[in-house]
Amino acid sequence: MDFKSWMTAVQQRTEHALERLLPQAATPPRRLHDAMRYAVLGGGKRVRPLLCHAAGELAGATAERLDVAACAVEMIHAYSLAHDDLPCMDDDVLRRGKPTCHVEYDEPTALLVGDALQSQAFLLLASHQLADDPRHQIDMLRLLAEAAGSRGMAGGQMIDVAATGRRLERDELELMHELKTGALIRAAILLGAQCGSPLAEAEAARLDLFARRVGLLFQVVDDILDAEASTATLGKTAGKDAAQGKPTYVSVIGLDGARQMAAALRGEAREAIEAFGPRGRRLHELAHFIVTRTF
Amino acid sequence: MDFKSWMTAVQQRTEHALERLLPQAATPPRRLHDAMRYAVLGGGKRVRPLLCHAAGELAGATAERLDVAACAVEMIHAYSLAHDDLPCMDDDVLRRGKPTCHVEYDEPTALLVGDALQSQAFLLLASHQLADDPRHQIDMLRLLAEAAGSRGMAGGQMIDVAATGRRLERDELELMHELKTGALIRAAILLGAQCGSPLAEAEAARLDLFARRVGLLFQVVDDILDAEASTATLGKTAGKDAAQGKPTYVSVIGLDGARQMAAALRGEAREAIEAFGPRGRRLHELAHFIVTRTF
Repeated sequence: MDFKSWMTAVQQRTEHALERLLPQAATPPRRLHDAMRYAVLGGGKRVRPLLCHAAGELAGATAERLDVAACAVEMIHAYSLAHDDLPCMDDDVLRRGKPTCHVEYDEPTALLVGDALQSQAFLLLASHQLADDPRHQIDMLRLLAEAAGSRGMAGGQMIDVAATGRRLERDELELMHELKTGALIRAAILLGAQCGSPLAEAEAARLDLFARRVGLLFQVVDDILDAEASTATLGKTAGKDAAQGKPTYVSVIGLDGARQMAAALRGEAREAIEAFGPRGRRLHELAHFIVTRTF
Repeated sequence: MDFKSWMTAVQQRTEHALERLLPQAATPPRRLHDAMRYAVLGGGKRVRPLLCHAAGELAGATAERLDVAACAVEMIHAYSLAHDDLPCMDDDVLRRGKPTCHVEYDEPTALLVGDALQSQAFLLLASHQLADDPRHQIDMLRLLAEAAGSRGMAGGQMIDVAATGRRLERDELELMHELKTGALIRAAILLGAQCGSPLAEAEAARLDLFARRVGLLFQVVDDILDAEASTATLGKTAGKDAAQGKPTYVSVIGLDGARQMAAALRGEAREAIEAFGPRGRRLHELAHFIVTRTF
């Protein structure tokens, strides 16, 4: 299967899995469940589910297990977007080409949507058998909790909030992104692999290095796109980071510097998983896709 | 040990355990960790940890395991308070006699404190051995995720938000509280028991009935206290529910009706665990304490 067909197939099965694994809209409290589905379904590139499936294929995981892990990670991502868009944070009105959750519903609902999506993600990982050894499944729950929490995504958000309007050094910026975006992308990849046969220690280390490089790569490209693209292409308000005085790779090392950094990270990511041979094919293709995407 | 000494001992060990199990203030991002500790430490009746320890003693659980389960539940509770107090929710400035988290810090920080405390709760349950059989520990993670999520605490909040300003029937009010307060109190009790030797099916059912009655009891008493007490005694803004047009037991069935309901629930709770004999002593005492508390 060529990459584009594979990607479309994973995106479609992720959409179906999300529809199934979110609480149904008819289940009370209906307004909350309706809003949770609004915040998650029908949009997004599903980069984290794609990475999860690609890593899972490398480890021989079943698609059914990968659907659950991918949806858990995507729900954490969607919760962070619902909270990020709130008036007290980025105060954004457009997301994935649609009104943001607090605009379509209201602020209390968007707050609770985020809170409940986080619980739902852990509920998924605890309600489906994802590993042959239950102790490994507990490790997976720990990995997701670490990636989402104060030394992961939420911690990265905190650095971001505190940094608005002041200049960050490159290493501070890197820590911020490592936590804010990188931790969850890394979790998507490692959880995918953990749905399959356990990797040898050296293999796991290589995959982890790939995951860290791709996490950073994704953010650098995001900053480049935010600086370059129009709102229509992005499906979210463009150029907003700069307008809000948020530090980005483009503001810290310039557009050319950011492009060079992206190329270097892509090279390091490829190198990290070279030893996997054809098993790493989808991961290679995804790293390429992340660099060349225009939305 | 008499009840008061036992309660003080559990409250103290819970405080120490929370200090230990929260991220340290010196760990970056420091502002977030400092605010998380502010939101959790140095206050609160620790009702959920008390119930967790009482149920754990009934099942022969070690105090070390109970500390972890109790802290996880208390972190979920503290996250819900930080989010409830936000301007877009109850807009409250006083909590446990101190400025609320968004007043002491700011709104984005209070939002992230709640988000990160939720992750931290799941991280605790996934990072410590709490059951001899790892599959039972996964069940515990599932129980907490259900209790916190859209068909638990967050769902109850949603009903509460949507109900403000309109009259609820008694059964609607009961569903709201069953989710909003009851689900997490039930989780505290069941998780405590699950830290110990597995209960027989009939015993587990009795404990579950007790947990459901106590959850409701706690809320009825809370409504009575809110209607009666002064701000100084409560340590939070009193009479606010009525002022905001929120439905309470007092507004739906009157003060006398609420007092009768509390007495009946206490009776049902006692009856549910009578068969445990002296093993249920602390649970009995806690039910009594919940009915007679004045703060």
